[in-house]
Amino acid sequence: MRLADIGMIGLAVMGENLVMNLESKGFVVAGYDIDSARVKDFRNGRAQGKNIDLFDDLDRFVKHLQRPRKVMMMIKAGRPVDEVIEKLIPLLEKGDVIIDGGNSHFLDTTRRTRYVESKGLLFIGTGVSGGEDGALLGPSIMPGGSNAAWPLVKPIFQAICAEVDGGAKCCDWVGEDGAGHFVKMVHNGIEYGDIQLISEAYHLLKNVLGMSADEMHLVFQKWNETELDSYLIEITADILAFKDHDGSPLIDRILDTAGQKGTGKWTANASLDTAVPLTLITEAVYARFLSSMKTERMEAAKVFPHEPQVFEGDKAAFVASVRDALYAAKIISYAQGYALMKAAAKEYEWNLNYGGIALMWRGGCIIRSAFLSEIKVAFDRNPDLTNLLLDPFFASAIQSRTKPWRHVITTAIAHGIPVPAMSSALAYFDGYRTERLPANLLQAQRDYFGAHTYERVDQPRGVFHHTNWTGRGGTTASTTYNAK
Amino acid sequence: MRLADIGMIGLAVMGENLVMNLESKGFVVAGYDIDSARVKDFRNGRAQGKNIDLFDDLDRFVKHLQRPRKVMMMIKAGRPVDEVIEKLIPLLEKGDVIIDGGNSHFLDTTRRTRYVESKGLLFIGTGVSGGEDGALLGPSIMPGGSNAAWPLVKPIFQAICAEVDGGAKCCDWVGEDGAGHFVKMVHNGIEYGDIQLISEAYHLLKNVLGMSADEMHLVFQKWNETELDSYLIEITADILAFKDHDGSPLIDRILDTAGQKGTGKWTANASLDTAVPLTLITEAVYARFLSSMKTERMEAAKVFPHEPQVFEGDKAAFVASVRDALYAAKIISYAQGYALMKAAAKEYEWNLNYGGIALMWRGGCIIRSAFLSEIKVAFDRNPDLTNLLLDPFFASAIQSRTKPWRHVITTAIAHGIPVPAMSSALAYFDGYRTERLPANLLQAQRDYFGAHTYERVDQPRGVFHHTNWTGRGGTTASTTYNAK
Repeated sequence: MRLADIGMIGLAVMGENLVMNLESKGFVVAGYDIDSARVKDFRNGRAQGKNIDLFDDLDRFVKHLQRPRKVMMMIKAGRPVDEVIEKLIPLLEKGDVIIDGGNSHFLDTTRRTRYVESKGLLFIGTGVSGGEDGALLGPSIMPGGSNAAWPLVKPIFQAICAEVDGGAKCCDWVGEDGAGHFVKMVHNGIEYGDIQLISEAYHLLKNVLGMSADEMHLVFQKWNETELDSYLIEITADILAFKDHDGSPLIDRILDTAGQKGTGKWTANASLDTAVPLTLITEAVYARFLSSMKTERMEAAKVFPHEPQVFEGDKAAFVASVRDALYAAKIISYAQGYALMKAAAKEYEWNLNYGGIALMWRGGCIIRSAFLSEIKVAFDRNPDLTNLLLDPFFASAIQSRTKPWRHVITTAIAHGIPVPAMSSALAYFDGYRTERLPANLLQAQRDYFGAHTYERVDQPRGVFHHTNWTGRGGTTASTTYNAK
Repeated sequence: MRLADIGMIGLAVMGENLVMNLESKGFVVAGYDIDSARVKDFRNGRAQGKNIDLFDDLDRFVKHLQRPRKVMMMIKAGRPVDEVIEKLIPLLEKGDVIIDGGNSHFLDTTRRTRYVESKGLLFIGTGVSGGEDGALLGPSIMPGGSNAAWPLVKPIFQAICAEVDGGAKCCDWVGEDGAGHFVKMVHNGIEYGDIQLISEAYHLLKNVLGMSADEMHLVFQKWNETELDSYLIEITADILAFKDHDGSPLIDRILDTAGQKGTGKWTANASLDTAVPLTLITEAVYARFLSSMKTERMEAAKVFPHEPQVFEGDKAAFVASVRDALYAAKIISYAQGYALMKAAAKEYEWNLNYGGIALMWRGGCIIRSAFLSEIKVAFDRNPDLTNLLLDPFFASAIQSRTKPWRHVITTAIAHGIPVPAMSSALAYFDGYRTERLPANLLQAQRDYFGAHTYERVDQPRGVFHHTNWTGRGGTTASTTYNAK
């Protein structure tokens, strides 16, 4: 009996494609699914003649795995994952590894890592990005969990993942507990941001300049040869060229109500929990919500009609400015996403490899782009970088684009075009670089109505003062110390 | 032995002041605190000669209450509330009412309502707003929970709450389960938004126009006589006039790092859970986070220095425009907050009285303002109003201010002044009134890389299509139906 190098539980399209990918790289693979018909179809189909053994009996499946066993689940996130873990525990032995490759919440993964470790086993929760094609041809893989498990799966994961720049692997160890799923979640949040920014650029080209789908196709095709070079810009160019049955652009027939699977929301929630201003991704999530309110928007459009505006500037120059605004806002989005990862690493005591994360996202996944190489370089240059914006490359990239970026947003505002992501990115940038924000007034108000106290610019931090604001009539502040 | 009309558990400043307020309105009040010294101090102090009986023994305290007993807790939110409930249950009898007046999360209140009801008792979770002064002189009270409990506490709560417009009570039944605490949470979120908007206005007057604190004091004083008439504008005027020991404005000495107690964050989380674009309040929460990053901002200020700009327009006209922008953005904030309440009412099956909520906020609480009367009128006019922006009064109020509002934001952008709340409000407004948003591109992308399908503008809603986007070479879409 040949023993398998790894076992896959769940043979829907993602699981099946990962099995095919693993086998094509020389591994012997065992597959299990609770659905016998699915197992049979796979056995008589793509698995024929391959080093793939398929089971609908979990016990037999586990017995076919080489020790230490590596059992990967590609199943629906949530309760099913806990159920399968319960079934596996009695079948496995000390040192075996359970891997969850689904879209689990990072806090569930932290909980499961500790639970599985308490049973003497090892656990990995890993992001797998790139969809069906990625699973088959090379996904981005972001594993975290039991540190001791990494050497056991590294040769397997790094054999099947995407590669960039002539051999760099888009898979590396992310960190402890739920760190892998956290990074995958941030990836998805950044994907929300990137997509929203591209949509805003498209909206501007279409509604300010009145460009046709074909004209915009050419713009995005050109942009894909610049610093914006990325998968999402590339497919945008493809989409804009795509014609419907009657030869007219298909894009114009698609309803403008956006779907979502909730990971953007998780990212926003995580930023609120860690006190990180993740404005751009959150605005992108809200923009999807707003897009779904189609009926209400149609009603509002009648109450507040758009007044047609004629663009009187240089069209080509405006296109170039939109490209600059898109790039500048994208830098902000990644800076915020990285700030979120840094805050989470501190909060949850993870050792994250920030440059490595950029490399993992370089290939295989939806946000893959040339841009990510620059992020890797920035963190290689300074692994302790506080914020991406303070890296010389990105500082200069932003600095040189602030003028067109401001121009694009003020033009959008004049034309009544909503650019929530681009403009919240600019507000963040202007806030981030402001030494003195108006939060002094905010603190005074909170002290006024709630005695919440405040600190002073001319006193040490950590010394809290309260003023009796309503003591009118004198010019003397009744400031008191409050060493809280 | 005289029996008390109501008992108060927790005699810190809020609890004590509520006891004093209740007694002053003719009620006999029993008070309990676990801290004997605090009980003694109160007994020998403000309670002397009043109809107030104080206890450090819970059993004796409960025995002093008239049936059906009304026991109100003013204690720290979280586990202490559950602990006190457990202690009370064996001491109470069918039909008695436990009231939580603390700052509990609405989901905890829903859980507790069901639990306490399962024991044959009634439960109320109520927001109490207005701080120490409000507790003593008339707070805004927002009760929800067991419907059957309302008639029992109504005469008491409506005797001690704030009153406006010659007798209208700032307390009414909000709704089932955690509805009262939900509405209090939204109140706090709106408070975050109002404060942020005023801070942005202050920042603009100070940094675009170069106004002194004294000049700004006069501006806010005047604004308080306009449609902006509100407690927060009033105290802003007070704060700007307040002088430090040396006679210079105290506001300039206060550190610009904002504190927060987490309810703004809860509101943002609730909006993400109910898919409501609550952009302004969330940006206000993020602005507080950003303000706390003082050291990092000081570093960034060196990397990206502000280039001084001279304002060349009419100063008085700009001040008027800032007032319009503030008012317009405030309308958006309340529209979003009300949309959140509507979504929550649907999600959690509450019957919310939207006009009544505006009235509850009219007096006693931090966000009290003339503005809220207009909201009450709007919901009286149309209780099923979809969105505040679609009410004729608010539609016209916004419409007449869009020009100055746009002018203020573009000026802020040109001057590099961050106005995240004002500008995200405008992006929301422009998105809300846009019949066709660019989410068609977003849907095309999601279908391209993830086969997520899309709907078409020329086909019925609910019919989902998928296109083989990479099938290049032809002009025909391979659109398929997917009745999912």
